[in-house]
Formats: sequence, C-alpha cells, structure tokens
Amino acid sequence: MCCLKWQMHDHKKARIYRLPKTNINRAEEVVDRFVCHEFERHRKQLHMGKRRDKYLDTNPWAIIETGFHPGKSLVSESIFSVANEYMGVRGYFEEGYSGDRLPGSYFNGVWSETDIRHAVMYKGLATSWTFMVNAVDWLFTRIRLDGETLDLATCECTEFRRTLDMMNGLYTREFTWLTKTGKQLSICFTRFVSMATPNLGTQKISLKALNFDGIVEIDAGLDFSNIHQTIEQRNHWCIERQLFDTSCTSIMAKAERSHIYLYSSFRLAYDAVPEEENFSHGKLIGKKLTFQLEEDKTVNVYKLVLNHTDKKANGDPLKVWEQGSALAKKQEHLTYDQALLDHTRHWNKVWDDLDIEIEGDADNQQGIRFCLFQLYQTNHGQDGSNNIGAKGLTGEIYSGHTFWDTEAYCLPFYLFTNPPAARNMLLFRHKTLGQAKEWSLEQNCRGACYPMETIDGRESCPVWWHGNLEIHVSGAVGYGIWHYYTVSGDNAFLYNEGLDVLIEICRFYASRGNWRKDGYGFYGVMGPDEFHTFINNNYYTNLLAKKIFLFTIDTIERVPKTRDKNTIPDASELAEWKKMAGDMILPRDEKTGVYEQHEGYFLLPHIDIHSISKEEFPLYHHWTLPRIYRYDMIKQPDVLMALFLFSNDYSPEEKKANYDFYEPRCIHESSLSPSIHSIIAAETGNQQQAASFFKYATRLDLDNYNRNTGEGLHITSMAAAWLNIVYGFAGMRSDGGILSFAPTMPPGWTKYSFSILYRGARIKVVVTPEKAVFSAAGQIDELAVSVYHSRVKLTETPQGINLQ
Amino acid sequence: MCCLKWQMHDHKKARIYRLPKTNINRAEEVVDRFVCHEFERHRKQLHMGKRRDKYLDTNPWAIIETGFHPGKSLVSESIFSVANEYMGVRGYFEEGYSGDRLPGSYFNGVWSETDIRHAVMYKGLATSWTFMVNAVDWLFTRIRLDGETLDLATCECTEFRRTLDMMNGLYTREFTWLTKTGKQLSICFTRFVSMATPNLGTQKISLKALNFDGIVEIDAGLDFSNIHQTIEQRNHWCIERQLFDTSCTSIMAKAERSHIYLYSSFRLAYDAVPEEENFSHGKLIGKKLTFQLEEDKTVNVYKLVLNHTDKKANGDPLKVWEQGSALAKKQEHLTYDQALLDHTRHWNKVWDDLDIEIEGDADNQQGIRFCLFQLYQTNHGQDGSNNIGAKGLTGEIYSGHTFWDTEAYCLPFYLFTNPPAARNMLLFRHKTLGQAKEWSLEQNCRGACYPMETIDGRESCPVWWHGNLEIHVSGAVGYGIWHYYTVSGDNAFLYNEGLDVLIEICRFYASRGNWRKDGYGFYGVMGPDEFHTFINNNYYTNLLAKKIFLFTIDTIERVPKTRDKNTIPDASELAEWKKMAGDMILPRDEKTGVYEQHEGYFLLPHIDIHSISKEEFPLYHHWTLPRIYRYDMIKQPDVLMALFLFSNDYSPEEKKANYDFYEPRCIHESSLSPSIHSIIAAETGNQQQAASFFKYATRLDLDNYNRNTGEGLHITSMAAAWLNIVYGFAGMRSDGGILSFAPTMPPGWTKYSFSILYRGARIKVVVTPEKAVFSAAGQIDELAVSVYHSRVKLTETPQGINLQ
Repeated sequence: MCCLKWQMHDHKKARIYRLPKTNINRAEEVVDRFVCHEFERHRKQLHMGKRRDKYLDTNPWAIIETGFHPGKSLVSESIFSVANEYMGVRGYFEEGYSGDRLPGSYFNGVWSETDIRHAVMYKGLATSWTFMVNAVDWLFTRIRLDGETLDLATCECTEFRRTLDMMNGLYTREFTWLTKTGKQLSICFTRFVSMATPNLGTQKISLKALNFDGIVEIDAGLDFSNIHQTIEQRNHWCIERQLFDTSCTSIMAKAERSHIYLYSSFRLAYDAVPEEENFSHGKLIGKKLTFQLEEDKTVNVYKLVLNHTDKKANGDPLKVWEQGSALAKKQEHLTYDQALLDHTRHWNKVWDDLDIEIEGDADNQQGIRFCLFQLYQTNHGQDGSNNIGAKGLTGEIYSGHTFWDTEAYCLPFYLFTNPPAARNMLLFRHKTLGQAKEWSLEQNCRGACYPMETIDGRESCPVWWHGNLEIHVSGAVGYGIWHYYTVSGDNAFLYNEGLDVLIEICRFYASRGNWRKDGYGFYGVMGPDEFHTFINNNYYTNLLAKKIFLFTIDTIERVPKTRDKNTIPDASELAEWKKMAGDMILPRDEKTGVYEQHEGYFLLPHIDIHSISKEEFPLYHHWTLPRIYRYDMIKQPDVLMALFLFSNDYSPEEKKANYDFYEPRCIHESSLSPSIHSIIAAETGNQQQAASFFKYATRLDLDNYNRNTGEGLHITSMAAAWLNIVYGFAGMRSDGGILSFAPTMPPGWTKYSFSILYRGARIKVVVTPEKAVFSAAGQIDELAVSVYHSRVKLTETPQGINLQ
Repeated sequence: MCCLKWQMHDHKKARIYRLPKTNINRAEEVVDRFVCHEFERHRKQLHMGKRRDKYLDTNPWAIIETGFHPGKSLVSESIFSVANEYMGVRGYFEEGYSGDRLPGSYFNGVWSETDIRHAVMYKGLATSWTFMVNAVDWLFTRIRLDGETLDLATCECTEFRRTLDMMNGLYTREFTWLTKTGKQLSICFTRFVSMATPNLGTQKISLKALNFDGIVEIDAGLDFSNIHQTIEQRNHWCIERQLFDTSCTSIMAKAERSHIYLYSSFRLAYDAVPEEENFSHGKLIGKKLTFQLEEDKTVNVYKLVLNHTDKKANGDPLKVWEQGSALAKKQEHLTYDQALLDHTRHWNKVWDDLDIEIEGDADNQQGIRFCLFQLYQTNHGQDGSNNIGAKGLTGEIYSGHTFWDTEAYCLPFYLFTNPPAARNMLLFRHKTLGQAKEWSLEQNCRGACYPMETIDGRESCPVWWHGNLEIHVSGAVGYGIWHYYTVSGDNAFLYNEGLDVLIEICRFYASRGNWRKDGYGFYGVMGPDEFHTFINNNYYTNLLAKKIFLFTIDTIERVPKTRDKNTIPDASELAEWKKMAGDMILPRDEKTGVYEQHEGYFLLPHIDIHSISKEEFPLYHHWTLPRIYRYDMIKQPDVLMALFLFSNDYSPEEKKANYDFYEPRCIHESSLSPSIHSIIAAETGNQQQAASFFKYATRLDLDNYNRNTGEGLHITSMAAAWLNIVYGFAGMRSDGGILSFAPTMPPGWTKYSFSILYRGARIKVVVTPEKAVFSAAGQIDELAVSVYHSRVKLTETPQGINLQ
C-alpha cells in the first residue's frame, strides 16, 4: 500500500506519475513536490501564515534569477517557460543537465493516449486517458570543450544569470564556464517562440572565449526521445521520416496512440563558419558544428526551428510533411534578428492594452504582469481548436486538460482584454460538440454533455464520481456563451455556434434531471465543491441549468430568420424547458437567506476546519474519501460561485449572509478558491479578508507558495488573479444590463490602473486612494457604466469619482 | 469500449473474467452466461413470469440427468458438485472433455491474490484481490481404447445417466462408449468427498467390456495445472515437490501469491492387476495403468486421494508435506467401501435432523433437499477458519468471498440445525478480528471494521463505494453474535470471543459516526440496498449500530468476574456508547409509520419499476451508475431487512405500512431479496405474494432460473429458501424472548414438516392445512414457544394447534 501513496490525492493530479529517474533515491522529496499542497497552502495562508519561497529578483518587467539555484531547477523551468499558444517549452537547459529536470516541450492540442484501467468496469465510465504529450526537444544542444561536455550540474560555472523579459518574452541565460583545463568560455543562450509566426521557435547561442583560442564543438538537433514523465514514464513517439538537405534538417514523428504527426525542421546561421557534420541517433537528428574560437571574439549561432502539426488524429503523414516543408521554405530567408523584431512588435502592441499597473507594491506589480504574460502565452485566440490546460504549456500535471476553469475563470479575462480569444474558447466547445453529444448518449442522456476534463473533446476523467457527476461543467459552457454574449453583443456567434451548443446543453439537462412533486432538479451530481459526491439538487448546478434553459428559450425567440430552423427545438420541447426552468428546485433557508449547497447539506455534521491538525495535510494522503466527503467542510466556493457569476441577482444582505455562512467552512483546496472569496469579501465590506485572500494571488508561482510550481504554472489561477483585481478591488460586475464598478483601494497600494475592452471601446480605470478615474476611447457613443450604482457616461476625458 | 462490456455490472461478479478459450468464438453467449441475470429473473418472475429451464428428473432424494445434455454441461457441473466443507469439486468429467467446462476443484480458505488496480489511488482503498484459487484436479483421469481417448464431446456414447444421491452425496455417472473400432465399453464413474475424513476424496471407475477382450489404458493422476478462469485465466500454482513411492504418489504445490501449500497424494486399488507406469508432465503427476479386459467382466479401479493444507499464507512447506504424508499413512489401509460406509453413516445421521418434508409439491420437495444438501456440503462447522462463499465450493464467481450473507442469511439456518457450525461462523470473525482492526485503522477509525468481502479477513472489494461504505457489514457480524446468543444462550462464547468482537465493532461505530444537534448517525454510507450510495443516516445501519451498542453495554454489565477485564472499555467509553445509542437518528415518517431508508430517500424521484423496458436489462449493462442510483428504486430489502431481523420490535401495522411502501420499489436484483419479501408478505397476510416470491426459492439452480447456474450454485440463497419456509410459511421468529411461530400453509401443499434444534431440544413442526403439530425431544424442561402469540409448553407428545 505504502508504495502507492504518492499516487493518492486530487485525481486531476494523481494520475500514473512515475518517479523521474534522477530522483529515484529521493522519493520522499519527489512525492512532496508532485502532490497537491494547495489545501495546506491556503490553510496556512489564511489561518496560520504561509512562508514564501522567493529567490527571484523583484523587477517590474522581468523575471531574473541571479546566480544559479540548482535546488529550484524544476521551479525555474516552469517559471521561465516561453510559449505562443501554438507551442511552449519549459525553461530547461537545452545543453543537457544531469540534475532535476523536466525538459518539456508541448504543442497545444497534440496528444497521445493511454487506457484508464478501472478495477471494475461499468457502463458510461471514461476509458481513454488523453494527454498533451511531451514532444520534440527542438532546442537540443550539446557543447564540448577539451573533451568536457557542458552540464551545469557538474561543470564549474560563474556569473550565472537568467532573465525572462516580460516585455517581449525573450529568455536569456548567461554564465561563464570554467573547464577542467582552465579555459573560460562565456556563453549566452537566448530563445523565444514567435508570436508573429506561431510555427517558429528560435535559439541563439553566443560563445566568447575569454582566455584562449581553441576548438568548441556544438551539437544542434531535434530530439524526439523526450520522456513523458507522468504517463508511464516513457517516450510516446514513433519516427516517421528524417531528411538532411542543403537548406534544413527535418524530422517527423507520430504520437503513438493518436497518430497525430509533428514535423520539425531547423536551419542554422553563424557569424563564423564551422565544420558541419550530420548525425542521427534513434529519435535524434542534428548537426555537429566545430568552431575555431578566438579569444575575446564572440561567435553567434542562430537556430531557426519550424514546427508544424495539423493536430489531426490518424492524420496524413505526407500532407503534414509537405505543409511543414512549405512553411519552412517560406521562412528560409528570415533572420533571427528580423524574427525577434516581428515578435517584439507583437508584444509591444499587446502590452499597450493588457497591462495592469500597480503602485506601492512592487511584488504584486511584477506578479500581475507575470500572470498576464503567461496567460497571453498560453492562449490569445490564435486558433479556435485550442483551449487552456490547467497548467498551460508549462508541465505535464493535469495532462494539458481543459476544465470548467476556462469558462468560469479564464473567459472573463479574455472577454475584457481579447474578445476574439474569448470567442475562440467557445468555438472549441462548438468544435467538440460532436464528442459532447456522443458522451451524453453514453451517459443515457440526450443533447451534449461536456467533459469534466478533455484535450480533444472526449471525457478523460478517470474518476467517475467527478467526471460523470460534475454536470455543472456543461452549465459553465452555457454560462460562458451567455456571458460572452452579454458583454460582447456578438449576435453572429450567439445565433449560430452559440445556439447550437446551448440547445444541446438544454437537451442534456432536460434528460439528465428528474421531476418530483415540488419541481425539477438533478440527482446524483457533484457540484463545484468536490468534497461532496452523489448529492441531489445542488444549488449551483440547478441554477445554472435554469439560467441556460431561460437564455436559450429567449435566444430562440429572437433568432433571426436567416438561421437554419431545422435545428431549432419545436414548441413542445421549448415548453418543457420552460416548465423545468420555472419549477427548478433551488434549496434555500428562508429564515437566514442562505442557499443550501445541496439538499441535506445543512444536516451534515459540522467540522471546525481549524481543528484539523497540521499533520493531517495534505488531506487526501491522510483521510479516506468517506471521511473527507461527509462533513459540511467544503473544498471551494459552490453557492458563493453562483453569487459571483450572477452577482446582480442577489442583494448585498444575501451575499453577506451566504459569505458569512460558507467562508468558515471552506478550506480552499483549489487554487481558484481564494480569489472568489476575496471578490465577495470586498463586495460585502470585508476589506481585510479581501486583502488576505488576495495576498498570494499574483505570486503563487513566482514565490512557489504551493511548493508545486515545479510541476508547471497554475495558469487558470492567473486568470483568477486578474479577476481578483478587476472584479474584486475595482468591483466590476458584468452580469447585469450595464457594466458596473465599485472600486476600493487595497491596503498599502497607492494606485492601480487597468484597461478593458468593452463593445468596441477601451475603458481605462485608474484608482487612487481618493478617486477612481474613468476614461474611454474607441466606440464611445452611448457608452455608459455604473459606478457605485450611479450611471456614468464615459468620454475620452477622464472623470474622477470619489471612492466610497 | 465495446470489448469491455462483458466486464460490467455487479462488481461482485464482474471481476477480470476472461473468456474461456473454448468459447472464444462465441463471446456473446459467454457474456450471457456469466453476467448477472438476477435482475431480469426477478422482474420476469414477479411481474411477467419467468421460464424455467428444467432438464433433470424430479426425484425426492436424488438429482438425476437421464441422457447427456451437452448444452447444459456447465450447469450440470455446478449442480453435481460434491463437497465436505474442507474441499469441493464441480461435477466435471474427470476423463477430460473438449466441450464447455470449468474443471473446478476448491479448498476452503485456500486462496491466491492479485492486485486491485484503481484508475487513481486514494487513501483507504482496497488493493488486494484474494480469491479461492482453482486447485488440484485430484480426479484426473484419461481412458484410451484402441488409440481413441474417451471424450464425451467427440466420442459416441449411449445410455448416459448421472445421479447425485442426496442421501449420501454419492455422485455416479455411467454410460457406454462405442469406439470407432466398434468396441463397447460400459463405464461407471463414482465419487464422493468424505464427511467422515475431510481430507479424503475418492473415485471409483468401473469398466466392463461388453463385446470384446482387450487392452484399456487409464491415466490416473493429480493435476495442478488447472486454469483459474475468472482471474487472469491462468494457472496460479508452483510445484514444490513430487514423490512416487510404493504406497502412494504425492505432489505439493504452493499458491503463487499467498504461498499457501497444498499437498495431494493418491493410492490405487484394483480388482485386476494392471501394468503400472509412473508419469510426470509439468504440474501433472500420475500412473498409467494398462488393463487386459475380458468380455462381460467388470474391473474396478479405486482411487483414494488424501489432500492436505494448513491454509497458512507463507507457510512451511516441509511441515505441510510431513502432515500430509502422515495423514496419508494413517489412511493407507482404508478401503473405498469402508470409506463410503463411514461417509454414508455420517450423512444418515445428518438427514435425521436436517430434513424438511413437503407433500403435494414434488419439485419443492426435491428443491429444498438440494438446498439443505448443498448448504451442509458447504459448511457444517468442521473448521472455525472456514466461512461460506457466496458460491460455496462450486465456482469461481465471487472469488470464494464471504459477504454479510453469512450472518444475515445463513446463520439462522445453522443456528437452528447445527449450532456448532453457527458458532464456527462467528469464530471466523473472531479469528479475523486482527485484520478487521487493521482495516478500521486504514479507514481512519478505531475498533474493527469487517470487510465487505473477504476470504482471509482482509477487504477484497475493488469498488470503494461498496467496500468502504457498507459499514453495515460489521453490524451484521454483531447481529450474528446477538442472534446466536439469543437463540443458544451460549454464555461461554458471548463473554469471550463474542465480546471481543462486539467491543471492537462498537469502537468502530463510535469512531465512524458523527454527532449533530439532533443525534448520532452515520454519514457517507451504503445500506443493504446497493442502489443508493454515499447516503446519510441509513435507517438499517443506524439501527444495527444502536442495537449493538446496547447489547454490548448490557453484556459488559453482566460479564462474569472470570473474564479478563483489561480488554473491557472503561465507564466513560461505555457512557459514550450509551449516549450514541440513545440519540441514534432513525428517520421515520410519523404520519405513515414508514421508516425512511436514509435521509432524503423520500425526496428522491420516483420511478415505476414496471415501466423499465425489457431491453434495458441487465440494468448494469445499459444504465450508468448515476442513473441506477438516483431514483427511489431499490435493489433489495433495506428497511424491510431491519423489520425482518428485529421482527418483535415492530407492530403488524408498521410492517404492513413499510411492506406496502417498499415492495413496489424493489427490483430484487439480489437473489437474497425475494425470500425476505416473501416472509414479510406472509406475516402481513399477503399469502399470494408470499407464494409468488417463494416460487423459485428452492429450485433457483436446479431449474437454472437465472441462467447463471453454470458459474456455480447460489449457496447463500439456499439458506434464504430455508428461511422462507421456516420464518415465512411457519412464521417462526427468534428475535424475541420466546421462540414464536405463526404457521401458514402455502397454496397447493398438503403438508410440510421440519425440525429445529433449540437450546438442547429438538422441536419438530408438522403443518397440515388444518393444524400445526408441535413436539419436542431432548432438553424439554421449561421448553415453551409462542404459537400465534399464545404460549405453548412443548412436550414429547405432539400438540396440534389450528391454523389461523
């Protein structure tokens, strides 16, 4: 039993992780690194203080590691990740490294698969475990000098410094290598993945001999032998084709189970002319370069990599090869400097709008920029078949799966900073409607049941009491469409793709629920709070279904004549939905105004969450499921989530009553949890708790509060950090007829500002301790917002409103 | 997905069954044979009539197959099983057979193990899957004549007849083999496993050449290469030792994962002297005999097999070998005829007391005798380390696991027919108290948590929402102790082993439950009705806990001074239990008097069970778990089970109200379910339903109503058939201060009689349409029972009481 313990805990993370080889003799530490510490974090954070683990410089626009921290190598790999939505690489040492490492290279939507093995098989259980598969190491490099191979774990190096410039996503790492033969070689690695040309990855290696003339050998290659560490700890690629020709070196492989093809090719450019020699070993292909260095003279090697995949399972290898070759051909004259210029221009434009400025709090200034930077790297609407994995493109935990985090947490950020990206996220759900319909059928239902976690639209959750019961996920998709439409007014999307999805979600809810005398509801479900399973009439789930029924009916009533009417439900089906919505059971204590999380929740035994001793955390390691699940302790907001999503439906008194009731019962096992609490605390006048819950939002990964940043970054939590500022401190609400604000000033800050896109206008909000100043640009006719419940017509001229 | 479907359904059966090789091209039929048809059966039986599949002769004392039915070969193998508690063999053809077969040979308590593989591991899940492993084929025989090997699937045979004499458990099979060369050989195989000498298995082969003189070759051996068909479809034995010596041929093997050693040896006796030759191939050892047959002269071959195991995991091979050899030595002069005589004497004595006579219903007369016979074969108290597997020693499904069936269904039968056997069943729980304590600890509790299913005391249920939630299993153990004591008055057991177990069960319940304002109860459980999971305050579970708290406290108050007091809880612990018992939450609708199965059950959506279409059965194949679990449909009695176990606590009105409420909601997915309904129907004056629910009780396997008898016999259901007559038709109740009866006469019967042992007396009950006649023998001083609520002092003189 004991040897299995490292697998336990949150199913999203547990998986079939195998210990990395390099850590085989330090199993305990690995366990510690890869398990869910979130529970512990919040407990300490909110109730007993939590120690940060800061080793990076504070800087408003850059992440800087001064001096090498080998004990943090996995954490740094995550933090120094660069990505452009199409692909991402962790900040690993491309020259090889014999210390702790996860040389992860990921392509959005490129997955392989393994079987979910159930002890006993039942109808409707998920059987396929898809995962974003660790792919080609296109940065592969080896450097040899006097027979010694560069390895920061074993070689002597000084003046180490690495920087991630958030202005343009340029990752630079420099140090001086002191060889055993006494030679000093200054080396600088630079890399970026192009925002201007998504297929393009680049690397620059600068070498300067400080005290010698001599020969240096560099291997530059494409390595498809990466180990996927969390699934079977093995490589999942089969090589299909390799080609050396005069212009570039190319390789193509297929993911073992999905048969998705990935083409990769590179060409090199130099300041000096080396000897070149091709090599190919197993799944590695490349060129060996021999340079004659001269003292004090810098030699630069530029590697431009063209990666291509069509993300199609059971794809056509020839087609992918030809497309990849054509793209490589197209870029054959592009220089590294030009590519960097194009890339930087892209980022400059992005930051003009994306930035949030904070004065008086340098840590959070850096933190929020890091969040915005990583969110943009993960997704910015480049391709509607991409979605947001919980760890983005920065690690293997969560298998690159998309959860309901996308619609409930990430979408608002994109809605107000990058509406086309928000639309693309919803298009992902439209593209995977077929899979959701198949899954619904498999669940004995009609319509579309969206998966708990997925990479290709199919359910990939191995734990049925999550995957098959969390039917609120479909509700989040419907909510996302409603929210997107409410904010954007995008009729074209709503009446076409949006309505397609809404109708099928309604059909799912109409077949999954049940009637009883007092109304319609859902039985045998799990709500957002995953500490209660197989519950009935979850307030959150029922409310979402009701809202989606009503919105869908309303949309159908207004649908333009041009829309294909064949797919529209008939009157009797609409009447059925209307009745379900009207008679939806929404448990509530009339006396207190507290909504009951689910039927019977108020009857559950109470546990004082502060009474749980420190040794019992992480809880999933020490408590059985029946123990975790049987109290009134909750994992993350459930009723409060409803109060956040539909804020305008509830009175301040109701919000306060529900916050006061649920807050002491929540242990924030999810990293998405504190932000929602912070937002509602701010709203209900509890500024101190709002600040306390925010405390670690922006720097969760930079300061490794959860001690699991090494696994990858908490990308969806980064969206929650944005929510926490805009919806929390600035009190924005977007679920009413009018966009509203109720700005507050967090303790210690002297100023903060952000801008949002809203119906063609850019609204800029600057908050100081005295005032909130609003201005707007773009389509500002008729543009008005509500500030502290008063209507304010926005103009280009800043208008100050005193804080309340 | 599709290829996995055969695994689905009831976890007790699903397991990792692999298709038998011989059926590889008839997968559908195999699926059909091995899945749970019980649901369908009861549905058809109770609501739309179910077709019996009778092919055996009706005979009061024998099971007879006239003419060979190859299509029923697996069913016959099960039905013609012989056992003596120590070991059992299915009625397979020992000479080999190339048709459908499961040559199962099982030893009580001899198991191997495989890992339970969970998709995600959590704290407290069972990881070890033990199973009663298919062991040595000690009947191994091959017969050759003119180069042809006897095989009933391919050879021409006539006059086939097999008989299982229930009087003495003698299995006889005879037929005439017509060889391709035109020779006619009459063959008769006889076998029995000795009740007088549990280690002894015997075989007799009689050969008579009908139309020739000539040579016949017989291989007689011990074969350890049996395939365990339901776990990995492979052999699980390693050979440790083989020995040919002058007196016998011996082999010993160990079960691969448990390292339990099994010794087997045989010696042969003949009427004629053959040529003998030893052989050994792989895991098979034996002797080749060559007989010179003469026309019309019978040659008999006698094989006496001595099997021995100490059932100890990680045992001592030398010790087992020596013990086995010593036992073999001890029996070396025993003849087959003497062994049969000893064995028959044993059975004769058993039947004197065990028999139930039924007049006017030849089918049920045969059926109930078959049930009594098989129950005795499975367990009669030979060894306190044995328990009753759901399929006894007749098949692999259920893995030989003991469920709570033992205490709740089987124990009453033994209590009133064989009190020492009843005591032994409870001793099994005492012997496995250590494992139950370990399991409780693993479940974050104190005391002893008895496993859902087990063979060696450890939990072996792969499905946590059964195994970890059905905490009523410990309650059944406590109930068994209480019931045994109530009926037997066995103080010695109660104050020693019984109290040891009771105290630890109380400790488990005191740590597993929770307090809330209105009382104490259990949260996150599953009751006997396995169609609702993770429920709170299950009436049945709570009631059992309350009863056991009170009985244990009462026992401790009366405990003799001689008992070791160190293990007795202190006053504060007792006070805690008392408070828990006193404040136990027992949900009930005060208006109707209906007990609520669990909190919230009355709020569940109603489903008309008759509205479920035929095509949707078996339900586990077609419905997802969330669909099965979310209605008010129940699988088997839950509240009604409580009303049966504690009958005297409830008024007739309460029983009627609860029966009327729950009966239409129950689909009887468990074969144990209808009998309880029949008993309560009889009690509440619903004789027609009582008869309807009884209809198939005694002949479930003989007529293969469930179409799954081929997997093994429904041993624990056979106990329910006994309950159905004694508690149902005769209206016996044993949970009050006085044993009571309320006899009724089932439609069509003209007379039935049975006898029970009760506190040293044997009570004989004979019921005719007019009267119930009671008489007693043995310790009859002070012996009184209640008949229709009137006290009747029993004497040796029969007393007739008019039926009411």
